[in-house]
Amino acid sequence: MIVLLKNNTDKEQLENLINWLKDIGIESHLSKGAHSTILGLIGDTSVVDIDLIKALDIVQSVTRIQEPFKNANRKFHPDDTVVDIGGVKIGGGNFQIIAGPCSVESEEQLCSIAQSVKKSGAKLLRGGAFKPRTSPYSFQGLREEGIELLLKAKKMTGLKIVTEIMDASHLPLFEDVDVIQVGARNMQNFELLKDLGMTNKPILLKRGLANTLSELLMSAEYIMAGGNQNVILCERGIRTFETYTRNTLDISAVPLLRELTHLPIIVDPSHATGLSRLVKPLSLASTVAGADGLIIEVHNDPAHALCDGAQSLTPEAFDELAKMVHNIQPFSCR
Amino acid sequence: MIVLLKNNTDKEQLENLINWLKDIGIESHLSKGAHSTILGLIGDTSVVDIDLIKALDIVQSVTRIQEPFKNANRKFHPDDTVVDIGGVKIGGGNFQIIAGPCSVESEEQLCSIAQSVKKSGAKLLRGGAFKPRTSPYSFQGLREEGIELLLKAKKMTGLKIVTEIMDASHLPLFEDVDVIQVGARNMQNFELLKDLGMTNKPILLKRGLANTLSELLMSAEYIMAGGNQNVILCERGIRTFETYTRNTLDISAVPLLRELTHLPIIVDPSHATGLSRLVKPLSLASTVAGADGLIIEVHNDPAHALCDGAQSLTPEAFDELAKMVHNIQPFSCR
Amino acid sequence: MIVLLKNNTDKEQLENLINWLKDIGIESHLSKGAHSTILGLIGDTSVVDIDLIKALDIVQSVTRIQEPFKNANRKFHPDDTVVDIGGVKIGGGNFQIIAGPCSVESEEQLCSIAQSVKKSGAKLLRGGAFKPRTSPYSFQGLREEGIELLLKAKKMTGLKIVTEIMDASHLPLFEDVDVIQVGARNMQNFELLKDLGMTNKPILLKRGLANTLSELLMSAEYIMAGGNQNVILCERGIRTFETYTRNTLDISAVPLLRELTHLPIIVDPSHATGLSRLVKPLSLASTVAGADGLIIEVHNDPAHALCDGAQSLTPEAFDELAKMVHNIQPFSCR
Amino acid sequence: MIVLLKNNTDKEQLENLINWLKDIGIESHLSKGAHSTILGLIGDTSVVDIDLIKALDIVQSVTRIQEPFKNANRKFHPDDTVVDIGGVKIGGGNFQIIAGPCSVESEEQLCSIAQSVKKSGAKLLRGGAFKPRTSPYSFQGLREEGIELLLKAKKMTGLKIVTEIMDASHLPLFEDVDVIQVGARNMQNFELLKDLGMTNKPILLKRGLANTLSELLMSAEYIMAGGNQNVILCERGIRTFETYTRNTLDISAVPLLRELTHLPIIVDPSHATGLSRLVKPLSLASTVAGADGLIIEVHNDPAHALCDGAQSLTPEAFDELAKMVHNIQPFSCR
Repeated sequence: MIVLLKNNTDKEQLENLINWLKDIGIESHLSKGAHSTILGLIGDTSVVDIDLIKALDIVQSVTRIQEPFKNANRKFHPDDTVVDIGGVKIGGGNFQIIAGPCSVESEEQLCSIAQSVKKSGAKLLRGGAFKPRTSPYSFQGLREEGIELLLKAKKMTGLKIVTEIMDASHLPLFEDVDVIQVGARNMQNFELLKDLGMTNKPILLKRGLANTLSELLMSAEYIMAGGNQNVILCERGIRTFETYTRNTLDISAVPLLRELTHLPIIVDPSHATGLSRLVKPLSLASTVAGADGLIIEVHNDPAHALCDGAQSLTPEAFDELAKMVHNIQPFSCR
Repeated sequence: MIVLLKNNTDKEQLENLINWLKDIGIESHLSKGAHSTILGLIGDTSVVDIDLIKALDIVQSVTRIQEPFKNANRKFHPDDTVVDIGGVKIGGGNFQIIAGPCSVESEEQLCSIAQSVKKSGAKLLRGGAFKPRTSPYSFQGLREEGIELLLKAKKMTGLKIVTEIMDASHLPLFEDVDVIQVGARNMQNFELLKDLGMTNKPILLKRGLANTLSELLMSAEYIMAGGNQNVILCERGIRTFETYTRNTLDISAVPLLRELTHLPIIVDPSHATGLSRLVKPLSLASTVAGADGLIIEVHNDPAHALCDGAQSLTPEAFDELAKMVHNIQPFSCR
Repeated sequence: MIVLLKNNTDKEQLENLINWLKDIGIESHLSKGAHSTILGLIGDTSVVDIDLIKALDIVQSVTRIQEPFKNANRKFHPDDTVVDIGGVKIGGGNFQIIAGPCSVESEEQLCSIAQSVKKSGAKLLRGGAFKPRTSPYSFQGLREEGIELLLKAKKMTGLKIVTEIMDASHLPLFEDVDVIQVGARNMQNFELLKDLGMTNKPILLKRGLANTLSELLMSAEYIMAGGNQNVILCERGIRTFETYTRNTLDISAVPLLRELTHLPIIVDPSHATGLSRLVKPLSLASTVAGADGLIIEVHNDPAHALCDGAQSLTPEAFDELAKMVHNIQPFSCR
Repeated sequence: MIVLLKNNTDKEQLENLINWLKDIGIESHLSKGAHSTILGLIGDTSVVDIDLIKALDIVQSVTRIQEPFKNANRKFHPDDTVVDIGGVKIGGGNFQIIAGPCSVESEEQLCSIAQSVKKSGAKLLRGGAFKPRTSPYSFQGLREEGIELLLKAKKMTGLKIVTEIMDASHLPLFEDVDVIQVGARNMQNFELLKDLGMTNKPILLKRGLANTLSELLMSAEYIMAGGNQNVILCERGIRTFETYTRNTLDISAVPLLRELTHLPIIVDPSHATGLSRLVKPLSLASTVAGADGLIIEVHNDPAHALCDGAQSLTPEAFDELAKMVHNIQPFSCR
């Protein structure tokens, strides 16, 4: 970490800073130039609160050299993490497609979709039981009942299940869930992240609508700092000024996260744009860009679906897509 | 709500839609043109899930005429809401400044600041006990102990206290807190909002970094739908491409929210930019633009503060600011 | 176009509007509902100035059904446009890679790069003679001399040349240039677009940093309205809050533009992120997402290049990339 | 400027860099640490092309200490610049309101508005003759004829006139124009800026929709580097994700630009949001935040105006606003 000091720095304040750094295990190296004075911090600066340093009267700017994330950092863990979901592996060359309906609606709907996506090769079933909706008047999901239906579908098909948690108090309901999803709106719900860090469940962490890659990795760090290393990152589109699509898929996030972290990275092309007809091109693009997997909405009757049908594929379209993704896999620049 | 249908609409699907709407109490009025067919929805369309309609195969686009929020909507509640915080009123012509440190650090720090902001005319004391921090390695607040110190300061000074909640499970600790703050990162933590809707505490709801005004009002609607009408809205800057400031204060939000809702609207000029030297101009601007109040960070020793000192005013600077805001009040275009 | 009128509309103003529309060839169809009145506009509404209608006192909102672009609209020209650049075709199934240095620096540099990209299969050579630079103190390009060097490289290699214009007064210098590029910063330099519309040169139109797809198509429309139908669109990243990359590549733009327009669509993965190590994954992703071509920066000595070396590939890396793009072509979902 | 070098830096490349810097008059100071090596650049680094340094293989990151603008920089010109427009002064404590219609429509319209804004105290008349419009099918302005009408209004009322230029080739038409405006879409039309730098006309430079303050100042620098120091900066809203308003007024830009530059700063509250009912609160806010002036759209018949009527005030509303702005002036924190 490089701290650029203001001109005419107060000596006492500078000493205060140097001593305070020493107390937390960081050595400082002062270098005075003709026009500016620089303090180089040496040691494990991931523990240093950058805002705290910036706050000081004597400081002009602070530049991190070392990234503020540690457990998630590829520099300290050069090998890819492989997350093992009851035998289904993701990361480190293992590619998985997670498929299923936006919301769990009924046993019939869920089981029908589960069977068809299984036939197309998916090993993981997604389905929303708790649904984060902008409006309190929108359908909020089947909640507990939705989880039960997912577990039934799991029993029937052997697919591993992936579903979203919205509050740590619901954790007991997720005991038999295979992968717990943290939605974009909860990416910085730090109390929830801490609680998930104390489980050993695989966590699918979605990037927030307006969060940087660095913030995504810091949220992963919250989970990992608690002891749970099974984090899967998910790019799902960010909020921009463009209005044709609901969000803008940040495809560069895939190769960039690959550099920065050893965790598996998947892409959600369904939520990224909200348009089912863009799912195919974005899935292929994400695959060749090096993603470790995809999470795709599939509905047996998108035209009558009561939630996010606009972004769902039919089972037939999904089957075709799964084949195309499989064929293109060898060309991935992973 | 106006639904623009696609050309060559399937008749059966159209009937399905019309019947489904009837079931939820909405009448439809079909009008066929040479180039397009329009379905006008009549009734309380705030209960209609717009995504659900958009999802249908036969629908090209949907335009809301009526806003999707109801309890928060000025159309249905033309008079300003006045939130009464144990006798301290905000809204409807009552202007309040909430002041205090970013984080509660110690009894000495908090009480010193509380006494000085009281002397400058503030009737509400802010102070973070639970702190949402990007990094798990940053100071997370004094938590329970912080709440206790706030209650001590309240006892000593008579100031009402305002502090942030990060998880519904902490609610018992907030029993004697006067105003519960929901931070920007939790604006769409819907489970938390629902739980706060079942209390009768005044809630200070901050706009999310990447949330529209419509989404802010829908989050207020979550609280109000639960029965709690005591919601204060807070503009605190949005995330843009500009990098000189941490966020971009959306000053237009003040007069726009004034039109759309009857709830009190305050501005946080400290978090909006992260620069203490901008707090004065932005406070004056917000006041004349019609805000019902301000929430301002004050620290007795910003240069040594261990959190967000860069955006805090000294008690002296705050005293000067409070006077200027008072003088400019009569010119507010509220 | 659907015009939603305010309640209590002034009759005279409404008649004024209807008559004014009739004058420009648009028929209106009035439909009164219990809660709102709608005016449907029938005819060629691409000539209607939407802001003008919105401006009226009696209008609440205006929704376009028909896109405001006509010449560029796939609805009116279902077949793909193939732009013919002196025998080198792009669009309609013809894929091209445009390669070359960011700036033309010297004859030696340019010819060396031209020969190597030709060997790798490129048929078009890019190279900046006029350089738009944020700072007046940065290298502004070799200008006239740069164009001359490009023409020399063209003579030597037979490659078609692509270079940027910054002002219409420079047009005479571009007489032997094969494709004239309009840079992102000039996408809404409407006077320049009009002048280019009066030439018959192929125009490579880059999307502005903060421009929507609709605005990009309207800028193409400026050129096409003048009579020049040879427009190639280029996605090159948009400005967002993310800071790891210079811009955010909007990959969804490729399939979306494919739907909206018949014009060829290419991607610039070099400028999209500013990082050479992302050029490969983004090139592959763009290709499978359906792009008609790529424009890639190649420099024989990126480490010593005096402009944008950070985003340039070496000739060797480009050769490898060209092969990979060629291999992945059959999987494009074009 | 601080250059952070990569570990294991190639010695020859480092020497190349140091020598190249010496050639352009910059001394370097190397400081090796245990974990990183830093090169401090000393001298006039505003001439250094930062992208060029970043491009080098051996460089990890570059941090500017000194801003890249020089003529516009307050550090080198501590006193406020006062721009003198034929006796009407702006900046350095002189506050001006520029008022008039979006577009010049007719002699009658323009003269009527000119007389009324003059009566309300305005000394500068705005009016668009050349209009940048997204669509080629929208009204493009009266062009030459519009300029002539502005000159007539100037003759009649004595008001100074302000109007937009869209292409340098039109400069001869602007000989008797008092202030030449560069619109947001042309803020980075560098060839135009260079040409304006060679005139001695006051230039009103509007911030681009997606441009940072630093880029705005660099565009001012283009004009000033040519010798023309009469630049007035204008904040007019930036593009964000919020859709209620056309743009988001960045009010913080006023005090921030005040710190960074000595040039006058005005605000355009009409274009910032596109809603006339927000012009009053935003004008008052901008004034107290320290602006040197306002540019406001006034139309004698906004409901029938054929361009941007939605954001125009009536002469009566403008008269009231001008009084309120006058009354609030003493409270400005300029």
